[in-house]
Amino acid sequence: MDRLRGPRGGAPGGADRGFAVGTARSRLLAAAMDLFMRHGVSGTSLQMIADELGVTKAAVYHQFHSKEDIVEAVIAPALAELEAVADAAEAQRRRNDRLRVALEGVVDLVVRHRGLFAMIMTDPQVGRLVRSRPPLRGLEERIEAVLTGPDPDAETLVNSAMVSGALMVAGLDPRLAGLDDETLRRHLTATVFRMLHVRRRATS
Amino acid sequence: MDRLRGPRGGAPGGADRGFAVGTARSRLLAAAMDLFMRHGVSGTSLQMIADELGVTKAAVYHQFHSKEDIVEAVIAPALAELEAVADAAEAQRRRNDRLRVALEGVVDLVVRHRGLFAMIMTDPQVGRLVRSRPPLRGLEERIEAVLTGPDPDAETLVNSAMVSGALMVAGLDPRLAGLDDETLRRHLTATVFRMLHVRRRATS
Repeated sequence: MDRLRGPRGGAPGGADRGFAVGTARSRLLAAAMDLFMRHGVSGTSLQMIADELGVTKAAVYHQFHSKEDIVEAVIAPALAELEAVADAAEAQRRRNDRLRVALEGVVDLVVRHRGLFAMIMTDPQVGRLVRSRPPLRGLEERIEAVLTGPDPDAETLVNSAMVSGALMVAGLDPRLAGLDDETLRRHLTATVFRMLHVRRRATS
Repeated sequence: MDRLRGPRGGAPGGADRGFAVGTARSRLLAAAMDLFMRHGVSGTSLQMIADELGVTKAAVYHQFHSKEDIVEAVIAPALAELEAVADAAEAQRRRNDRLRVALEGVVDLVVRHRGLFAMIMTDPQVGRLVRSRPPLRGLEERIEAVLTGPDPDAETLVNSAMVSGALMVAGLDPRLAGLDDETLRRHLTATVFRMLHVRRRATS
């Protein structure tokens, strides 16, 4: 999960007050992400985020009004990408293509964001936040609907739940942290295709 | 996860002081398990366990000296069964048989204990407890060694991590809560066998 860790500490005592707002904001989000991964969202306070950056809590409040706002900003880019995956999958006419596009898209997100994806799926506070926002809750349901199709039988339900769990750990398991993106992407894709009986794209 | 929920509340005001010790103990463990599943281990206090049972905190202390002792007692039966699975798998000479026995055993544990297995795998406090006890840490490593074999390549590492995650969610996903044990066991087994390229036992 090291790749998720943003710059640490930096110059102490708020020496980055001279940074452009965008940079200070992204440094704050990187530090928050790092703390969320290590302590969970509930175990991370605004004070801890301020300490990690070497700034005052007031400086954090200057950017964000609550921890919830920070969580939303941390997960927003991944959720926007997930929405694009749902759009692309739903645009396919055939079930196999919908599954293929959805799985390739989600695998790619997991590989590029690693631990973030697991945090979104497992942290109870993040779960409540996502479920409390209708467009986000709808997004989760859209991906599930692509994976299971209408009126899923028991096998399909079990397999699609297993795919979610299998992808979630990919970003968490320390034994996989050393794998490069391409290797991880290739094996994740092959295995989730096998789990859901998805045919690879015909080579043209 | 309803099947994991023990008797609730019962007669208020400690009316079960007349119960045999074994029964009071198992009622306490069932209530603790229920609270751990709903609030996580860190979100559950001894006071909450006492309130759930309608007894005083002193009555809880009479049975267990700390929350950690309760967690250990809650997970002990499943860990003993997991140890038996590791023994049985390691006793097999052929790799395919080792995998088959380990996977069938772990699937059976997941199905019978459902949410407990996920709690053992995901709760940070439970993880720290399991890792702090050498025999338990050794058990986790034995199961992993059976699943990956010696010197695993990237594909084997990715797949065995995915199997852990896939089985973990089986006890958590609310969409699977309505499936009976036999249906869940059959689909989980088929899919983890497919994930790890395990051949079924030859029919004799």
